[in-house]
Amino acid sequence: MEKDKEKNLGITAKKDKDFSEWYVQAILKAELADYSSVKGCMVIRPYGYAMWEKIQAYFNKRLNEIGVKNAYFPLFIPESFFKKEAEHAEGFSPEVAWISNREEERLAVRPTSETVIYDSYSKWIRSWRDLPLRINQWCNVVRWETKAVKLFLRTREFLWQEGHCVYETKEECDKETLLMLKEYQKMSEELLAIPVLIGRKTEKEKFAGALYTTTFESLMPDGKALQMGTSHNLGQGFAKAFGISFLGKDGKEHIPWQNCWGISTRLIGAVVMVHGDDKGLVLPPKIAPVQVAIVPITFEKDSKEVLKKAEEIKSSLNEFSVELDEREYNPGWKFNYWELKGVPLRIEIGARDIEKGQAVLVRRDTGKKEAVKINDVKSEVKNLLDEIQKNLFKKAEKFLNESIVEVKTWNEFLKAVKNRKMAKAAFCGEIGCEEIIREESEATSRLVSPEEKAHGKCVRCGKEAKVVAFFSKAY
Amino acid sequence: MEKDKEKNLGITAKKDKDFSEWYVQAILKAELADYSSVKGCMVIRPYGYAMWEKIQAYFNKRLNEIGVKNAYFPLFIPESFFKKEAEHAEGFSPEVAWISNREEERLAVRPTSETVIYDSYSKWIRSWRDLPLRINQWCNVVRWETKAVKLFLRTREFLWQEGHCVYETKEECDKETLLMLKEYQKMSEELLAIPVLIGRKTEKEKFAGALYTTTFESLMPDGKALQMGTSHNLGQGFAKAFGISFLGKDGKEHIPWQNCWGISTRLIGAVVMVHGDDKGLVLPPKIAPVQVAIVPITFEKDSKEVLKKAEEIKSSLNEFSVELDEREYNPGWKFNYWELKGVPLRIEIGARDIEKGQAVLVRRDTGKKEAVKINDVKSEVKNLLDEIQKNLFKKAEKFLNESIVEVKTWNEFLKAVKNRKMAKAAFCGEIGCEEIIREESEATSRLVSPEEKAHGKCVRCGKEAKVVAFFSKAY
Repeated sequence: MEKDKEKNLGITAKKDKDFSEWYVQAILKAELADYSSVKGCMVIRPYGYAMWEKIQAYFNKRLNEIGVKNAYFPLFIPESFFKKEAEHAEGFSPEVAWISNREEERLAVRPTSETVIYDSYSKWIRSWRDLPLRINQWCNVVRWETKAVKLFLRTREFLWQEGHCVYETKEECDKETLLMLKEYQKMSEELLAIPVLIGRKTEKEKFAGALYTTTFESLMPDGKALQMGTSHNLGQGFAKAFGISFLGKDGKEHIPWQNCWGISTRLIGAVVMVHGDDKGLVLPPKIAPVQVAIVPITFEKDSKEVLKKAEEIKSSLNEFSVELDEREYNPGWKFNYWELKGVPLRIEIGARDIEKGQAVLVRRDTGKKEAVKINDVKSEVKNLLDEIQKNLFKKAEKFLNESIVEVKTWNEFLKAVKNRKMAKAAFCGEIGCEEIIREESEATSRLVSPEEKAHGKCVRCGKEAKVVAFFSKAY
Repeated sequence: MEKDKEKNLGITAKKDKDFSEWYVQAILKAELADYSSVKGCMVIRPYGYAMWEKIQAYFNKRLNEIGVKNAYFPLFIPESFFKKEAEHAEGFSPEVAWISNREEERLAVRPTSETVIYDSYSKWIRSWRDLPLRINQWCNVVRWETKAVKLFLRTREFLWQEGHCVYETKEECDKETLLMLKEYQKMSEELLAIPVLIGRKTEKEKFAGALYTTTFESLMPDGKALQMGTSHNLGQGFAKAFGISFLGKDGKEHIPWQNCWGISTRLIGAVVMVHGDDKGLVLPPKIAPVQVAIVPITFEKDSKEVLKKAEEIKSSLNEFSVELDEREYNPGWKFNYWELKGVPLRIEIGARDIEKGQAVLVRRDTGKKEAVKINDVKSEVKNLLDEIQKNLFKKAEKFLNESIVEVKTWNEFLKAVKNRKMAKAAFCGEIGCEEIIREESEATSRLVSPEEKAHGKCVRCGKEAKVVAFFSKAY
């Protein structure tokens, strides 16, 4: 007890002063994850992994409804496969880890699985009856980052899902590439309570080997955008490189169209950044491994009665995930503990509450306390969890909306980026111009607006604008 | 249609004549898995992966009840970690794939994760309050097999779960090592309908670095045992090697006790081998991705009415996983297809059945047909699925019981192994004697009987017997 009392639970950095330090402390102290002695790698601890499992459960349900099936393909990719699609090989080769002690040909540890999956597809696809083919895998991937580890955001190994589908026509492929992007958007908004922008990437930022890339991104509180996931129309390039063709209804051989799409454990980092506060995590109820923490307020003489009532309340809440904290710590310490963990709702119950036939409910998002009749606890928990989920989304939405600044001139652009905003600007779309923008402002194009047509001149080079794009610094 | 008609669905090998060929065809033709162009590796196709997901769901539920939490640790293990526990390093080093292009120190691709996990545990465990610590991970592991691939049974990469727990005392550790073994036995019997023997491994066969190893195994139809999973008491060896200690209630530093336990995708291979027949897979209902296949028997004039009724039946069965096969193949082809896939129950419905107010239910395990009033289909499906699950277990149990032969002499031993039986014999337990047994009979000790005391002489060397052990050839 003595030793534990001394444990400094709280985060010592302020979110709006030293965001990076706050982020690391929030994750380490809430035990979402830990650094590993393996350089560049992290350990996802049970509390963090439970969030990943909630993302998997939510998304697997949607995949099942859409007709996508899960499978598993090899971790290793022979160098020769990897080189079949030239742009793809060039894009990934700087980051590949190789196994060289086992076969004559070097084997890459997958940084992504297009090549090894499409080798199988070339054997499985024969006729139009085999299409569409929709397969997903949940797995680990390895990209040898050289910059310092950022927990959940930049590690040499991470967990993700990668969906790989094959279609008869470009139209179908376009349609489902967008469908998956919208699924991601929905998941982000509904489950993670994070509003996002969706749209295409510019030529410079698209995936190595894709026809085009779509993305969903949000702006983090430090003014950097986070690419939360992508959905690519791969065109026919990989199909040609891997010899995938099908006999059409017309009796002729055709080359199919392919897409792929992925999200990763970095989504957990997004949840931490977007919703957390100086006391620690603030978890949206739908992604929270623990939704309600019950803290009994006991003194020696009444502890039995109070614990009994606390247990009764717990049993009445079996549709939620509830922890009853019976540890030998004092209530104040427990309040801090569950706040640090970001648990959406705390229930306090003591002898005086029992006398009054009530319990006290405390919201993590607003800190608001409310005494509730014991009979009403269940329905009020449901109401409050719904409200917290909505409130967190609204707060994040307000932040995102207020962070987007329409800029007309290059000076306005620079000022917006300096003020940690996202600059929305007319843009020529050219790779050269984008490189200059990055050099001068440290901002990159995040995505192209899917709705707005460009008019006027490019914000940087003054040539005719082709698109309206969003720019900011980024993770 | 023409092309598909020609497709040879059936398995051309007989299970009791050419078991290996039958096994490969059953898996490939049912599309459970495929060979990969990546040497030594396999692809787990959606139908096979769905079985793995059922194993995960069943076992995660039990883990949750026991208080084990899922987490994720790095894929890579620095060579220096690997060497900290000498026996462990020696046991695994022949099979390790190394990354050597990225860091000065070579990095092993995990063949198992004791070392990398216990490095984290040494940071997390401080006092008795942190114990027991119970963590599991579902992940891929790599062991560089040099023998030819056997789908699900021997591949260079496979999927598994590995649980790693830490306790204050040897007693707790012993207790939970056995608890997990019993959980595995229960899962095998309840979910996979496979009866197993459980017991300890001999000194020769135990896990590299363990105090002792327990195992659950079953005998396959070809007379080879399959080790289906293991649960090890690791003693204090790893704790000492990785500097894991805790402050006890007595205020002193102590070394904790550890266990670990795992099952892998080879369980899917066991299901194929134990239950399959010459027509293909026979899946126990609880592990079957599709439990019921509805095949409408249609002619042009009545197809609309029949399909409508088939859809009604499907909706009434929403508590089961049901496929309504509306493809443009003839019913006979579809019967073969679903038999090959091992779907436990087929429902046939045609115009004549509708006239009689009935549907025909056909069991995959016995082939028995039964006409059932349409109103009773739901309850009868439930009954039959229960019966099929039980029947498959009983058949397998009978086979296992009849395959165990008690032998008194070395000649009886050799005869039993030659007849593809499992020889149960008194044994001295010595490593040297076990090596001779293997050389002369090709059999290995599978496990030591937990119940029976040895009396008399060792079946091979004639010294005093210490244990009763089971011997057979093995995968």
